[in-house]
Amino acid sequence: MARLDELARFTETPGELTRRFLSDAHKQAALQVQDWMQQAGMKAQIDDAGSVVGRYGSGARTLMIGSHIDTVVNAGKYDGNFGVIAAIEAISALPPTPLPFAIEILAFGDEEGVRFPKTLSGSKAVAGCFDATALDGCDQDGMSMRAALQAFGCNPEHIQALKRPDLAAYIELHIEQGPVLERENRPLGVVSAINGATRLNVSLTGTAGHAGTVPMTLRRDTLAAAADMILAIESLARQIPDLVATVGQIKALPNAANVIAGQTIFSVDLRAPDDHLRDSAHNAITGALHDIAQRRLVGIEITLTHLAKAARCDPALQAELGVAIGATGHTPLTLPSGAGHDAMVFTGTCPMAMMFVRCAGGISHNPAESITTEDADYAIRALLHFIQNTQIG
Amino acid sequence: MARLDELARFTETPGELTRRFLSDAHKQAALQVQDWMQQAGMKAQIDDAGSVVGRYGSGARTLMIGSHIDTVVNAGKYDGNFGVIAAIEAISALPPTPLPFAIEILAFGDEEGVRFPKTLSGSKAVAGCFDATALDGCDQDGMSMRAALQAFGCNPEHIQALKRPDLAAYIELHIEQGPVLERENRPLGVVSAINGATRLNVSLTGTAGHAGTVPMTLRRDTLAAAADMILAIESLARQIPDLVATVGQIKALPNAANVIAGQTIFSVDLRAPDDHLRDSAHNAITGALHDIAQRRLVGIEITLTHLAKAARCDPALQAELGVAIGATGHTPLTLPSGAGHDAMVFTGTCPMAMMFVRCAGGISHNPAESITTEDADYAIRALLHFIQNTQIG
Repeated sequence: MARLDELARFTETPGELTRRFLSDAHKQAALQVQDWMQQAGMKAQIDDAGSVVGRYGSGARTLMIGSHIDTVVNAGKYDGNFGVIAAIEAISALPPTPLPFAIEILAFGDEEGVRFPKTLSGSKAVAGCFDATALDGCDQDGMSMRAALQAFGCNPEHIQALKRPDLAAYIELHIEQGPVLERENRPLGVVSAINGATRLNVSLTGTAGHAGTVPMTLRRDTLAAAADMILAIESLARQIPDLVATVGQIKALPNAANVIAGQTIFSVDLRAPDDHLRDSAHNAITGALHDIAQRRLVGIEITLTHLAKAARCDPALQAELGVAIGATGHTPLTLPSGAGHDAMVFTGTCPMAMMFVRCAGGISHNPAESITTEDADYAIRALLHFIQNTQIG
Repeated sequence: MARLDELARFTETPGELTRRFLSDAHKQAALQVQDWMQQAGMKAQIDDAGSVVGRYGSGARTLMIGSHIDTVVNAGKYDGNFGVIAAIEAISALPPTPLPFAIEILAFGDEEGVRFPKTLSGSKAVAGCFDATALDGCDQDGMSMRAALQAFGCNPEHIQALKRPDLAAYIELHIEQGPVLERENRPLGVVSAINGATRLNVSLTGTAGHAGTVPMTLRRDTLAAAADMILAIESLARQIPDLVATVGQIKALPNAANVIAGQTIFSVDLRAPDDHLRDSAHNAITGALHDIAQRRLVGIEITLTHLAKAARCDPALQAELGVAIGATGHTPLTLPSGAGHDAMVFTGTCPMAMMFVRCAGGISHNPAESITTEDADYAIRALLHFIQNTQIG
């Protein structure tokens, strides 16, 4: 817990925790994690996708345990970071008995997707599904991911070579970021599947004009059109159980009180445990948005910026994690993950599973995010039990 | 027209015209205007409110001719600037015959209100209605108007002393910023009254949360609430003839695609020719917004940031401007102004009137803003006729 506090000091914005992919704060946090890995007896380095990689023991096959150290804007200090620190703690606590596989702990840097259009580049690189076009995506200041990686000390041309052919399994510990474990009074859970996600960028073009002189009936106001669309998206999501839809990002131009917004851009984030359900909601939203744009005489361009299918966790690994949780004296709860995780990109590469830790009030992506020291201890003990008893490899 | 092009080079943002109050671009433009005033035979200086003041001739009483050289973000080059340049051109063209009054041309710097919470500080200062609390208002970077004035070379403590006891009349030339003169095929118009304006800042507080894990029914999403409110405002304004309402500025926090917006702030701008109509719309909007906030369980704070009563133009000056327009060979059209202008703060101080110049498509606050050289020439000739024939003073 002290290390999580210490890690939270690395931020772009004093007074809050904001640590975006490839920022200076990310670099400082990565160097700190590398140091802790070395203290735990691991060989550690930063790879060409900006992930910290710590290797322990040896073997033809590798158990990878990962999570991420980038954060959203004004974040909590457990999302991602807990999974990395917990894994290092488990390695520190391992007895010297050799294991039949190597272990690598990965601290990925690009899970939250708040900086560049495409995300999960670190985990995709090692899973072998990194799409090189992501390198051309630019942040709000016009800096490409390629240039940012170079500034971080990485060689983006080597990312494809990070693919690992030796993965026996991928495991991730993470805070739940939802209210289920707390409601069921369980400290730890086994994830059954990670919900799929679709992320869209919607760009509207109308006509800027003076707020005092253009009659209401002659306006092509893109911010009013965006408001119409946001309500349509919310209404549609409310009608479909298990689906959530969020518009979290918006930008109006020129963004002045006395000018009708000539351009408005906003994001749409859709999540569901079922891919067909999510795809049909995506289609319905696209249709509704085009109808509104047509009615309001504004131009519309909808771009798909992120697509992740629902990812099922490996049943054998789920069972082993359940046993490991049981060994701490608790009954595991099996639940789906509403949030996306680095783990999901390993589907199709190697067996993958996740363990969730209870968090207060289900609050996440918020400075109020918190877990108890007791629950953190249970999680590390369960991970240690899993490592020493798993039949992988 | 060449001078208007030249003045448009002074911008904060290369490739577009953005010149906010007390910016470096504003300082450069002010020095250029001061130089042109001196070339036209005027004594010119920058006063403690950041306005350029050029004095011509002498007399116990003064005819003030003003407009502004600040702009909105990504502006056109005629709004405000035309009135200043046209007045300098008229002075240059005056024959040496002494006039029974002094003339002062004022290039105000704070008409658009895009930087600080309160606006029109330059014209309010000379009209004697400047409210010193405006100095404490801060821009988005946290800089107060007081500090910005000091950096500009002004002494904000001397602003109250700028009040002029000797004003015989205030006249302003401005582009129409609306489609009426063009539709009626008239180059010039006489303004009957300036619509009143109410500007509000609405701040909503909900709960930030993870876009994937918080069910739709448990959200306190401030951006969805803002969307609801924007549509309510639009709908209300559409029901009331002559009223326009605009939400042009919005900011969601933390403004990330995968985080429910915990805070959203937006502006509301209301305009109407009748104060009672505008006040009742203001009340109706306040009520509707509070209802929506209550229904969505979000906190709401509505702040009045700007209030300007409808301002009637002086009938005698209107008649003289009509005669002056007639002298150019055109029939004047009398029309109200949908936009606010520096002129309105002179109500109660001295007789005030405005002349409008036709602009293409009624487009303003937009780079596509344009007027013809011919219409500009008619406007300057009419102003010259007015100066030589007015019975003021």
